[in-house]
Amino acid sequence: MTVGIAILGSTGSIGTATIRVAQRQKDLFDIVALTAYGSEELLQQQAAAVDAKFIGLVNGSAAGARSRSPDLHAVGPQCLVDAATHPDVDIVVNAVVGSAGLEATLAALKAKKRVALANKETMVMAGDLVLEAARSAGGQVVPIDSEHSAVLQCVTGHPSAEFCRLILTASGGPFREWPKERIEKATVADALNHPTWAMGRKITVDSATLANKALEVIEAHYLFGLGYDAIDVVVHPQSIVHAFAEFVDGSVLAQVGFPTMELPILYALTFPDRVKDAAVPRFDPVRAGTLTFESVREDAFATFSLGVDAGRAGGTVPAVFNAANEVAVEAFLDERIVFGEIPVVIDRVLQRHNMVDARDLQTVIEADRWSRVETEEACS
Amino acid sequence: MTVGIAILGSTGSIGTATIRVAQRQKDLFDIVALTAYGSEELLQQQAAAVDAKFIGLVNGSAAGARSRSPDLHAVGPQCLVDAATHPDVDIVVNAVVGSAGLEATLAALKAKKRVALANKETMVMAGDLVLEAARSAGGQVVPIDSEHSAVLQCVTGHPSAEFCRLILTASGGPFREWPKERIEKATVADALNHPTWAMGRKITVDSATLANKALEVIEAHYLFGLGYDAIDVVVHPQSIVHAFAEFVDGSVLAQVGFPTMELPILYALTFPDRVKDAAVPRFDPVRAGTLTFESVREDAFATFSLGVDAGRAGGTVPAVFNAANEVAVEAFLDERIVFGEIPVVIDRVLQRHNMVDARDLQTVIEADRWSRVETEEACS
Repeated sequence: MTVGIAILGSTGSIGTATIRVAQRQKDLFDIVALTAYGSEELLQQQAAAVDAKFIGLVNGSAAGARSRSPDLHAVGPQCLVDAATHPDVDIVVNAVVGSAGLEATLAALKAKKRVALANKETMVMAGDLVLEAARSAGGQVVPIDSEHSAVLQCVTGHPSAEFCRLILTASGGPFREWPKERIEKATVADALNHPTWAMGRKITVDSATLANKALEVIEAHYLFGLGYDAIDVVVHPQSIVHAFAEFVDGSVLAQVGFPTMELPILYALTFPDRVKDAAVPRFDPVRAGTLTFESVREDAFATFSLGVDAGRAGGTVPAVFNAANEVAVEAFLDERIVFGEIPVVIDRVLQRHNMVDARDLQTVIEADRWSRVETEEACS
Repeated sequence: MTVGIAILGSTGSIGTATIRVAQRQKDLFDIVALTAYGSEELLQQQAAAVDAKFIGLVNGSAAGARSRSPDLHAVGPQCLVDAATHPDVDIVVNAVVGSAGLEATLAALKAKKRVALANKETMVMAGDLVLEAARSAGGQVVPIDSEHSAVLQCVTGHPSAEFCRLILTASGGPFREWPKERIEKATVADALNHPTWAMGRKITVDSATLANKALEVIEAHYLFGLGYDAIDVVVHPQSIVHAFAEFVDGSVLAQVGFPTMELPILYALTFPDRVKDAAVPRFDPVRAGTLTFESVREDAFATFSLGVDAGRAGGTVPAVFNAANEVAVEAFLDERIVFGEIPVVIDRVLQRHNMVDARDLQTVIEADRWSRVETEEACS
């Protein structure tokens, strides 16, 4: 019996890596459903290669798309939920960019699926709702982010009460050594020049502001049930150590390896087991070279501090931060604001927000929409 | 109900650290028995401090010792076995130096005790016999060596079939960067000047020759059931990463921390659980500084290669290597041979040895004795 997989966001870097991983393990996995935002041609190629039963395109008119691609089973945002709840699907790989992934995650969990989560916005916007959905229905959230996968690998097999602190590593992004003043004037090309990971544009800018790391801290808070004082971030430019996990006796485990997303994807699919995969590059500490660790320069990376503080505030504040960050990054990529304005704009929106409890999906979505409107205004 | 502990070698660095650890966890542990080689005064102090039920002194005349110390319960080598098999003892911390610890380990395992093993010679001389004794009687061997404890911590909670390779780290000792020619002329003071760990004289010299690391490779082979091709050693001068464990999917876990023997001792006592211990120094990657990894210079550290090859050869060869190394190090410390002669002498003895299966304790002890006599001759 193979395990059925849906890939939401199949044409992105995580999506294509998931297809490679699953195709190498054909005895174990069957790719059932694929969805993409707008890359219709690549989606069709992927669907043919893996013989997918369900293909969804988020962005497109149903009539126009279907007339070109008669195999498309769904067009429009609802295709994410349809793919995520497909009866032949056991694991939903959620690699959708931004807040669009939340509804599909909740729907998948309610349908008792495992969600392999690369869409960290899901946990940031609505961590409590996601955990509650998983708990009440019997679904399961397993992270694909390399840092969270690293923590999960370190703590799996140990009683959760023995795990007391974690340290996420950050590459530091392209501006790690830049003076604050120079960072504020960074161009789009500067921000997209990430030293270790090849990723999409939005997440690459998030790596440059360290917003990404703040989102990961919030995600870790929910995934591993730790308070914010028990979650640290350390800059580690080589991206070899992905996270440290500390236990009550003072011992620390770390997960290490050459940067590849294929390993955390494979682990999320096979968790808590592991399967042989010779394609993942073998680790060699000598070849890894010198490893260094630095504190985060919070003065130069204001978006990071804003994000972690949003996490601490709780309620709708993380969702507001996340939406404001998405809109501000988009405005930066469109060259409507400069790099240094990203935290300024986000801070202005956070200041205006009246926090409420994130008690249901509607409340979270409203906070998200409010934040987008406010941030668009602030960027114009 | 507290767990009863016997400490064999209580006056050495592992022994005294074990007393500190157990005294911090008085709710859990009760030190029942203590033995020392010759440090009678410290032994008596320790026994009074922990209120030990059994006190043994290995080296001393029974009459002479008892007349001075009426509390001594046993004098002579047999006291090790008596302490290890004491009915109130659950865990035997074997921190005896050299081959003298083997018989006590076997006796403890046959009495269904857990042996927390700092005496690596036990596994090197008679790994198969020790494992067989543990298996047949229901005893258990848990390593105290920081590298083996690190591996154990990385693999605990994971199915053993998923664990496929390990990398032990070596500080590289005081001669890591010395040219081969200079190493060969190193003095006793040079060899005792270890960069990161404060240990006894014999083990410190073993760190300088890297014989210690060869013994650890052999110990790891038995403890973790891996072939010699699946056990690597890498020089890591900072001694922060204690070992790497690789899994079948290519993922690698590492155990890291500031050098302290108290953590592996505590873990060996509480394994597979962990207990809160705030006295172990908290790890901070930034404070750990730069981490580097180098290959072992096998041409400059011939004792290392001789030891690993002895492990591969199997049978009585590791016992012969171990005994030859002990005698050669003693001769070096007595300034009867120079540092560069240590591997030459060991090699000469290994060349003369006719390997047989290490089928029983008698065979192993005979090989050990033969090697000592041969090595003494080679050193004179």
